[in-house]
Amino acid sequence: MNSDFELHPQLAADCLSVGRLSLSELLLLNDARYPWFVLVPARAGITEVFELDEADQQQLWRESARLATYLKVACGADKVNIGALGNLVPQLHVHHIGRFIDDPAWPGPVWGHSAATPYEPAALQLRVDSVREWFVGDLTN
Amino acid sequence: MNSDFELHPQLAADCLSVGRLSLSELLLLNDARYPWFVLVPARAGITEVFELDEADQQQLWRESARLATYLKVACGADKVNIGALGNLVPQLHVHHIGRFIDDPAWPGPVWGHSAATPYEPAALQLRVDSVREWFVGDLTN
Repeated sequence: MNSDFELHPQLAADCLSVGRLSLSELLLLNDARYPWFVLVPARAGITEVFELDEADQQQLWRESARLATYLKVACGADKVNIGALGNLVPQLHVHHIGRFIDDPAWPGPVWGHSAATPYEPAALQLRVDSVREWFVGDLTN
Repeated sequence: MNSDFELHPQLAADCLSVGRLSLSELLLLNDARYPWFVLVPARAGITEVFELDEADQQQLWRESARLATYLKVACGADKVNIGALGNLVPQLHVHHIGRFIDDPAWPGPVWGHSAATPYEPAALQLRVDSVREWFVGDLTN
């Protein structure tokens, strides 16, 4: 069922792959201004949530809740923003962004606001280590 | 459990209430440029999806999938955008917008793009009748 799944090249270019959860690839967007992660269900040919079967939908949202809790609890976000847009990249992917009242786009949406600021290597490593620790035992590769 | 739930006044001002699903208030945003609906779980004091209990989360996403299918199938949307932001209105509410490649904000997000264009009364009635028909039997009031 997963064998035909391949990450969309635009997501591969913009993000770092943190690992694979039960259903989804967990990606970190390379923008140091926000803790911004993307879940990509590893199912081929899916563009809308409702195209996943019922069990996969439930698993996607379980992974989403766990990631959103990480953003709130471990990152201390003031608000979590969740979005499935896909107007430019059709492969289903769900953004999860920890928002802060002093972040550059607050209180507007982050999408289309301004160009990303890539992480410094040390900050990137800290971010990846932190989310790996949160999902420890549930992430492969 | 629902007794303390009251719709946030900003949502009440911007939207028309279509009715109540099993969990959520179904609202229509008064912007004729997009078929744009909002689900508001009728639970008091909730700002993030993960604060709902597990059963409510599953119900929210079932209602979401059904609404997104309506936007795709009945409205003929090219893409469905789903977003839970809440930076300005903290009460948990999940946007569902049918997007078209010739809509004013395409391919950007609709949030923060430009001011809404209120419906003409006849178009509003058509939209409400159409979504009520989709959810017939599952909507109260």
